[in-house]
Amino acid sequence: MPDDPLKSWRDGPTKSAIRNFVFRVTSEETPDFVPPTERIATFDNDGTLWPEQPTCVQFLFTLDRVKALAATHPEWRTTQPFQAVLEGKVTSLAALGEKDLRKIIAATHSGMTTDQFNAIVADWLATTTDERFMRRYTELVYRPMRELLDYLRANGFKPFIVSGGGQDFIRVFADKTYCVPPEQVVGSTTATEFQLRNSSPVLVKMPKLESIEDGPGKPVAIDRFIGRRPIFAFGNSDGDKEMFEWTAAGVGLCFVGIVHHTDATREWAYDRESEVGRLDKVLDQAKTKDWIVVDMKNDWTVIFPPAMPSRRN
Amino acid sequence: MPDDPLKSWRDGPTKSAIRNFVFRVTSEETPDFVPPTERIATFDNDGTLWPEQPTCVQFLFTLDRVKALAATHPEWRTTQPFQAVLEGKVTSLAALGEKDLRKIIAATHSGMTTDQFNAIVADWLATTTDERFMRRYTELVYRPMRELLDYLRANGFKPFIVSGGGQDFIRVFADKTYCVPPEQVVGSTTATEFQLRNSSPVLVKMPKLESIEDGPGKPVAIDRFIGRRPIFAFGNSDGDKEMFEWTAAGVGLCFVGIVHHTDATREWAYDRESEVGRLDKVLDQAKTKDWIVVDMKNDWTVIFPPAMPSRRN
Repeated sequence: MPDDPLKSWRDGPTKSAIRNFVFRVTSEETPDFVPPTERIATFDNDGTLWPEQPTCVQFLFTLDRVKALAATHPEWRTTQPFQAVLEGKVTSLAALGEKDLRKIIAATHSGMTTDQFNAIVADWLATTTDERFMRRYTELVYRPMRELLDYLRANGFKPFIVSGGGQDFIRVFADKTYCVPPEQVVGSTTATEFQLRNSSPVLVKMPKLESIEDGPGKPVAIDRFIGRRPIFAFGNSDGDKEMFEWTAAGVGLCFVGIVHHTDATREWAYDRESEVGRLDKVLDQAKTKDWIVVDMKNDWTVIFPPAMPSRRN
Repeated sequence: MPDDPLKSWRDGPTKSAIRNFVFRVTSEETPDFVPPTERIATFDNDGTLWPEQPTCVQFLFTLDRVKALAATHPEWRTTQPFQAVLEGKVTSLAALGEKDLRKIIAATHSGMTTDQFNAIVADWLATTTDERFMRRYTELVYRPMRELLDYLRANGFKPFIVSGGGQDFIRVFADKTYCVPPEQVVGSTTATEFQLRNSSPVLVKMPKLESIEDGPGKPVAIDRFIGRRPIFAFGNSDGDKEMFEWTAAGVGLCFVGIVHHTDATREWAYDRESEVGRLDKVLDQAKTKDWIVVDMKNDWTVIFPPAMPSRRN
């Protein structure tokens, strides 16, 4: 099929399930037809649209920010959890408790305007490469999921990202990388404050986490930001459980998709025991429901887009 | 002009300013061209899209809810501020302090699922009429502003409502009344909680106000929900001051519009001294900036759509 919009998806039950769902909700003659305005799709980000191993990208950004800011914070050399980060002892989220994580996020994601923060993130993404794949993170977006986003848009869906990660961090690259505009990116937020600086209004990021949109926080955030229930949801971990349940409880046909990381050669293999992106309860739930589990190794013919050396520098 | 999309706007400087702005940002050959994705417009609701006198609509809804719930809350007959409401002594927002208002909102806007709340609001809007105009509130939308929303949409703009009022309250009617879908309605929020009831997921409204999106809260909410700066903003009071300042501080051409209530005969006349929707500082600011003040009496040929008796019952 030369014009296959899902050409990185191997023909089989998973691909058929996606196509069948889209066909049914977009065909006016079927009882499952859904008007375009109601075609809300929600996607988790880490582990669903791009890798999250060995730890999630924004966490690496956060560690780098601690190192970058250490010169102006000499006290961090003897204050935890900053000391441990500076000594290279923190390499995973699990090594920090939530309280320490909040401290580090508050310290590194505040004290600048929103514009300044966006520039810092953009610069970091442009200059940092993944240790294993030796490519920028924005080049490591799963090709099949990028095709799926395009395919849904071409069929009148409005895709949103609903992530436990930082909303403003994701917004910096989502438009260019996923064609998802900022107003369709929902995630965890820190407080901002309106201030006048030299008579010019700015929004200043404050050292206060407002909300962490993971687990039950996902349907709460979907309701707050979108105000309607998705008919299509894609995720990859138990952090997406409640988003899946909320989507599946709607009236009419719905689609729940789960990226199962089964490909240690081309990407990573992990599920029930993983510290990052644990997929355990949801894997059990999928068996008793019509939830579609994507076997990354067998369902995806390619994972990452081909490297384009001319775009690397 | 038979096809005038702004036919309820009298020809003159105000109408010309709107048309001129839209022409410039949508004409690729002008230096002011803005791509469609960046054509974000934000509108206040109360006093900008529909009336807010003698007090705002949602406040009347809230008072009615206290009365409706009083039977199951016998203690309210002797507990303030509920007692005062039940005795008919509270007729304006200013009669309550913010603390009492929060108490009443918490008591009346919680304890049900989001779906139940939406049904209560829809029922109230369908069965309640404005005392002066004897029409449902959703029939009292300013015709010129409804035309303006359509006009902007036809020119590739994405209009959002950014209100100090309750986001979920406005979402109940915004889609049908303004053609603004729920995901483009930003307002004050109360907390919700994800719960399973008989194995079915629901979102339950909690007695906790999360945020009040007025004044400096408007640019904060715009950044949180939309993530880009509007190029067009319309409001009617000092509560919109920071939204205007934030809009006006963008790079490139912007439009700030202010509805000045100058028509006591057809609607209401109020500004600097008003308890509801005070327009004072912003009226001064408008003089020194290119902000457009709409003189309701002279700029609008009609205010409300014609009554359609067949639709009244």
